[in-house]
Amino acid sequence: MTKTKKIRDLVYGFISLDEQECMIIDHPVFQRLRRIKQLSLTDMVYPGANHTRFEHSIGVMQMATNMFDSIVDKNKDFLARGLSLNDNGIMIYRKIVRLAALLHDVGHAPFSHSGEDLMPLLPNTHSKYVEGQEKRYEHEEYSIEIIKQVFKQIIESHPVNDNYRITVEDVTALLGDTTVRPKASSLLWKELISGQVDADRADYLLRDSMHLGVSYGIYDRNRLVSCMTIGKTETEAPVLAIDEKGWYIAESLVLARYQMFSQVYFHKVRRIYDYHIYCATKEILGKLNSKDACYPPPNQIQDYIEFDDWRIYSALKEGGGGKHGEIILNRTHFKCIEQTQIIPTEEELDKMQELRNQYEGKNYYLDDKASTSWYKLDKDIFISVNDRRIQPLSEKSSIVKAMIEKPRLQRFYVENLMMA
Amino acid sequence: MTKTKKIRDLVYGFISLDEQECMIIDHPVFQRLRRIKQLSLTDMVYPGANHTRFEHSIGVMQMATNMFDSIVDKNKDFLARGLSLNDNGIMIYRKIVRLAALLHDVGHAPFSHSGEDLMPLLPNTHSKYVEGQEKRYEHEEYSIEIIKQVFKQIIESHPVNDNYRITVEDVTALLGDTTVRPKASSLLWKELISGQVDADRADYLLRDSMHLGVSYGIYDRNRLVSCMTIGKTETEAPVLAIDEKGWYIAESLVLARYQMFSQVYFHKVRRIYDYHIYCATKEILGKLNSKDACYPPPNQIQDYIEFDDWRIYSALKEGGGGKHGEIILNRTHFKCIEQTQIIPTEEELDKMQELRNQYEGKNYYLDDKASTSWYKLDKDIFISVNDRRIQPLSEKSSIVKAMIEKPRLQRFYVENLMMA
Amino acid sequence: MTKTKKIRDLVYGFISLDEQECMIIDHPVFQRLRRIKQLSLTDMVYPGANHTRFEHSIGVMQMATNMFDSIVDKNKDFLARGLSLNDNGIMIYRKIVRLAALLHDVGHAPFSHSGEDLMPLLPNTHSKYVEGQEKRYEHEEYSIEIIKQVFKQIIESHPVNDNYRITVEDVTALLGDTTVRPKASSLLWKELISGQVDADRADYLLRDSMHLGVSYGIYDRNRLVSCMTIGKTETEAPVLAIDEKGWYIAESLVLARYQMFSQVYFHKVRRIYDYHIYCATKEILGKLNSKDACYPPPNQIQDYIEFDDWRIYSALKEGGGGKHGEIILNRTHFKCIEQTQIIPTEEELDKMQELRNQYEGKNYYLDDKASTSWYKLDKDIFISVNDRRIQPLSEKSSIVKAMIEKPRLQRFYVENLMMA
Amino acid sequence: MTKTKKIRDLVYGFISLDEQECMIIDHPVFQRLRRIKQLSLTDMVYPGANHTRFEHSIGVMQMATNMFDSIVDKNKDFLARGLSLNDNGIMIYRKIVRLAALLHDVGHAPFSHSGEDLMPLLPNTHSKYVEGQEKRYEHEEYSIEIIKQVFKQIIESHPVNDNYRITVEDVTALLGDTTVRPKASSLLWKELISGQVDADRADYLLRDSMHLGVSYGIYDRNRLVSCMTIGKTETEAPVLAIDEKGWYIAESLVLARYQMFSQVYFHKVRRIYDYHIYCATKEILGKLNSKDACYPPPNQIQDYIEFDDWRIYSALKEGGGGKHGEIILNRTHFKCIEQTQIIPTEEELDKMQELRNQYEGKNYYLDDKASTSWYKLDKDIFISVNDRRIQPLSEKSSIVKAMIEKPRLQRFYVENLMMA
Repeated sequence: MTKTKKIRDLVYGFISLDEQECMIIDHPVFQRLRRIKQLSLTDMVYPGANHTRFEHSIGVMQMATNMFDSIVDKNKDFLARGLSLNDNGIMIYRKIVRLAALLHDVGHAPFSHSGEDLMPLLPNTHSKYVEGQEKRYEHEEYSIEIIKQVFKQIIESHPVNDNYRITVEDVTALLGDTTVRPKASSLLWKELISGQVDADRADYLLRDSMHLGVSYGIYDRNRLVSCMTIGKTETEAPVLAIDEKGWYIAESLVLARYQMFSQVYFHKVRRIYDYHIYCATKEILGKLNSKDACYPPPNQIQDYIEFDDWRIYSALKEGGGGKHGEIILNRTHFKCIEQTQIIPTEEELDKMQELRNQYEGKNYYLDDKASTSWYKLDKDIFISVNDRRIQPLSEKSSIVKAMIEKPRLQRFYVENLMMA
Repeated sequence: MTKTKKIRDLVYGFISLDEQECMIIDHPVFQRLRRIKQLSLTDMVYPGANHTRFEHSIGVMQMATNMFDSIVDKNKDFLARGLSLNDNGIMIYRKIVRLAALLHDVGHAPFSHSGEDLMPLLPNTHSKYVEGQEKRYEHEEYSIEIIKQVFKQIIESHPVNDNYRITVEDVTALLGDTTVRPKASSLLWKELISGQVDADRADYLLRDSMHLGVSYGIYDRNRLVSCMTIGKTETEAPVLAIDEKGWYIAESLVLARYQMFSQVYFHKVRRIYDYHIYCATKEILGKLNSKDACYPPPNQIQDYIEFDDWRIYSALKEGGGGKHGEIILNRTHFKCIEQTQIIPTEEELDKMQELRNQYEGKNYYLDDKASTSWYKLDKDIFISVNDRRIQPLSEKSSIVKAMIEKPRLQRFYVENLMMA
Repeated sequence: MTKTKKIRDLVYGFISLDEQECMIIDHPVFQRLRRIKQLSLTDMVYPGANHTRFEHSIGVMQMATNMFDSIVDKNKDFLARGLSLNDNGIMIYRKIVRLAALLHDVGHAPFSHSGEDLMPLLPNTHSKYVEGQEKRYEHEEYSIEIIKQVFKQIIESHPVNDNYRITVEDVTALLGDTTVRPKASSLLWKELISGQVDADRADYLLRDSMHLGVSYGIYDRNRLVSCMTIGKTETEAPVLAIDEKGWYIAESLVLARYQMFSQVYFHKVRRIYDYHIYCATKEILGKLNSKDACYPPPNQIQDYIEFDDWRIYSALKEGGGGKHGEIILNRTHFKCIEQTQIIPTEEELDKMQELRNQYEGKNYYLDDKASTSWYKLDKDIFISVNDRRIQPLSEKSSIVKAMIEKPRLQRFYVENLMMA
Repeated sequence: MTKTKKIRDLVYGFISLDEQECMIIDHPVFQRLRRIKQLSLTDMVYPGANHTRFEHSIGVMQMATNMFDSIVDKNKDFLARGLSLNDNGIMIYRKIVRLAALLHDVGHAPFSHSGEDLMPLLPNTHSKYVEGQEKRYEHEEYSIEIIKQVFKQIIESHPVNDNYRITVEDVTALLGDTTVRPKASSLLWKELISGQVDADRADYLLRDSMHLGVSYGIYDRNRLVSCMTIGKTETEAPVLAIDEKGWYIAESLVLARYQMFSQVYFHKVRRIYDYHIYCATKEILGKLNSKDACYPPPNQIQDYIEFDDWRIYSALKEGGGGKHGEIILNRTHFKCIEQTQIIPTEEELDKMQELRNQYEGKNYYLDDKASTSWYKLDKDIFISVNDRRIQPLSEKSSIVKAMIEKPRLQRFYVENLMMA
């Protein structure tokens, strides 16, 4: 039997790893995730928020494995008939899911999502390029690139892989690698890594809540895992779904996420620090002669991975972050002087326009990007109602239905003159 | 009423601060604590261990306040008669205790205690200098210096202080400032900041356990606080003590600390990273032309506070940490090949000597500094048995008595050649 | 100072009681609550559900006190001007609130709410009697009667009451005693005992969740307490409200309650045991020659308080519970063979009617009483938006608005013939 | 695959059961455990202590299974070579362990251990009878009898058993049935049910702590389970042991148990209620013409299982419990007026004798039965040090060694005359 190692984890107690997984984790490029905080500068508001993408990535691997095992346990016959997967095939996909989960965030920029606006614009040769739109690279592409360049050797040639014969493309396919022709099974398991009930959010809701000391994101993990199953679309394609008898747990997950968004992720002060760190980082990148004051593109991956929270912060401490760097060091953030309801009224929007005019030429920031819906209708959670027929959660739950409208909250922040 | 602010905390739920305390916390020199991890590189073993001295310092203020209030509540008459403290005097000391608790760790070096071996040697003019001993500055002296130089203005001149008339010396007296002549009351409250049942350890045991996801350090916080009281020594001096009816909680705290030491703070891998970061930092400091490759002394406080975990780590990433820096980045720590029992036998000590000879000239590390006793007899916990007479805990608890002998565990680590 | 006693509590850590409160709690009529389970036969589904009204009652006293203190802390001026309450008056109401909270459930029948359908019909002389409606006594009236008959002496004549001069009517007024002319202050504080954000539900959501081991009802207690304040209606009447900046916590409480209802209180199997215990108890009461097989009315309070869970259960074990008693002892409950959506469709209702016809004359049970709204519009939670003007929570939260429609879920259960 | 059912549990989240196990649990004789509180009248001190043997029994089954699986996982080769157990054999013992764990407490008397002093004296024909000693039956013998008489059919003839071919004797052998000739494997697994690190205490320490809201008994469950293994005695007999690398967890379990004993199980007030309920029950049994005012012996099992907490309590409420019954109903317990240290001094023992003389003829109670050692030397925990050689924990841990001396604490209680 392969030697395993156990890591203590806040959410799961212990997480077991095989030798190959240990080697990945001990690699400096993975260790870099220790220096990228999960929640950027959220610790400016919630002092407990110092946990990192490192801890989260290992957690997602565990959560994805738990979900995978639960689904397989209930659907052995279906997997055999519908996808021709026997026990061996299942073990191979299990390993692919583990690796994809472990590595899904390996390409994150400093300060996590706040760093995404500093990724380079897509060149017009890129498959996702759209004329006239300013689309940027996303961290997933960096993850894919890193997996291919840095981890190919460990993934494909480690003795452990003699048991699975996995290629890096098997792994990147689960992370949205458009250069790989996906297999039917991959399409199904991909949902475990990024979907409406994926292992990613299933992990971060709990982990963030636990480190911050809040209860907003706590949901019933065991129940969720045990209710995951496979449904079938109208075209008979297999999709991840939640057992009908457990549809409340799906609703509960949506509510947990909603509450974390409104209380933590979209917190007034947290949002303005996202802006400050964006500006400060842009200034730092500019001084480094980075093109357009952006991070290096995925094809310069060695340069890219030199960046982490600590490097940016050190530059910032040495004065490289300009005015916004100063603001962060002194904690003198812009103050929010006005905000709208989640769905703004006309008067509220007028008021915002007025403020813009009034502060013309001064230092202000209008945050109007709260556009991530609490619950995206285009990616509804499926409930497997009977004989694997699926029904959207928003049809079953009037609460979830009420959450469909996108929050369009706006906030107007101005410089903190008292401190200037 | 003074405006207050509330901070969410993992241990206490919410912590309230007045405007002066907010101003201290928002000061860049206090914000620096956000960049000093509470447990150094413990996250190499327990990935959840990313919390900082910032969070802990605010927590200690809350814990010290809770303890103070509980003691006062039970001892109003005694404080009036014995120490001439009326309600006003009590409120002043309450504020002093809060400030001392909040600032007690403000002078920590990067990587917390692992940095203390890189503090400069005491000059022979220093009051604690001992001929022939290599004594170094300790973080407390830096804290005192910082309070006096950096926070004097806020502590003494903030409008909130009109209510208390506190000087910085009132605060530093509680942190062991030998230049201040201590008052009787100060001597008592000093124990709340550093003693056998102080707010410091009362906080870190819980906080460390909660972020790491372990139960070792969890004890009954409410019970401890409610059992704290004042006893009297043979010379009638007031001392902090635990109510006899709650002596079990004192024992329980000792056991919690013991288990945290053996499972976390003295963890085999954690200890070797303390060594690696020490060596790497020494190398970095050497390159910076720091005298003797040490941190600047307390009288160069502005230079000193430029150092934090992030700065050292950045230098290390740029190759400044030498061989030990590489080891940290690649997680290829020395391996422990032999260790003794807690109280080593003669054979075990011989074995260690043998290993030393055998590895002469090679890269090895003998860790023989585990000399902190789990429970120090010289600073016993006092139980207030009746009419304020005190009895040492070690007399009441045979378990605590059994813990008096100093652990002298030794471990022998050698270079990880497989990875070289 | 009055001597106090501390009780260990799962939710609050410790709860302090003065001597009068201890005397109330030690009284056999209060001790009876140890024999009335909080959640009736919920332990047939969730084995951890053995906690009692005793534990909950003490908890509600603590929660009500916390809420009271938080409100007072923020509204001293307002209470002085608006309600002429000075510090002394506030301490008196604080004591009244504590006693009312402590005793609010003292009149519960065996098996808590399941017992309410066995309370006698209101006589036509009763103030709440409505011609043609079968209205019954409710447990609140028993609580009021018990307070007046059993606890008058302790409440009014205990030395502790020299400090407050409270009458039993002051206490019962907060529990809806219609024979007492309420004072303005009483009307305000009454909401703490029974309202949309009262101490009752604030306690049971947490307590039930913790004993059952579920996370559904866990919300942020500290945040809720700290956000409670006083608003003003259009007629300038003071009402309990939630600070605007904390309106999310009100939403969060509503969601917690919703999830506890759907997952625990309305659990399929739990509901049928409510029915079985109702039938079995009716049979037992009938054999005791109780009039109409009901509990004694409030004016026979001594007879009434002889009843508790244990007495009914003992009768049931001796065969007194008839067929339904057997079902409970053997755990052979009726099985649910059909249920509707929360808001039934026409077809679903037709299906239910069909089943009724089909099972005519057989043993079945149609549960169509799930009519408690998750969120009652007539008793909206008020948000104090600015200058104490109030806005209903359902206007601010689209989620809460979506919950207004009453659940009308129906379930059809039939005898478990396999076991017969 | 066998249909399974999941039960929500406070400690483990969910517990899975197969159909046979469900049938056992739903049997009225097992359901009786819902009416036997785990901690007798501990709720008189800790109001949260209402949990029952029912919940605990299911928990022990889960814990024993986790331990079994962990041991098997690490020792497959050893089990094959040393005990000739192949995969099939392992699955059979796994099932036996589950059943024995589930049923180990099924013979408990009302009020758990407090009821054991009311079990009949052993007849001189009994194998454990000792001339001149007043030895009584113990609850284990009732458990064995009940398994053989009541559950034989379900255990041996349920279709699930076609997979295992288990007899009731296989099960009772693990519970100390002296009429069964034990197999080598049974001897090993027996330790999982009753030993120094058995599933029983591993469960109750956590469960009791969680329901009471204390942290004393919380230890690291995952760590304990993962460290369990098999060692070998000097005679090469396999015994349960703890991996050397995890010996601290064994120490930690001993400390958790010690703290639960001193804070909960031996609580001053709890102990006196054990006495009161003993006296009251004796009175009730006397009135029922029970021989010697004892419970029926194991050979009258049908009569015996009629007794549960609720029946005794009902009798007590009807006045059948005499003076001690009154004391319980009115919570007017004897007060402790004197107690010794854990290891009494000569003067303390003299003082006790004095009190005895002084209270001659009056109502008092001297509790001198606190003789259970915190840690029994005769049943040391084994640490598997290397190559399965075992070392007693008390040799490795000076703390555990310090706990070997038996506590002999005595307490003197007298009637509460104030209330009389």
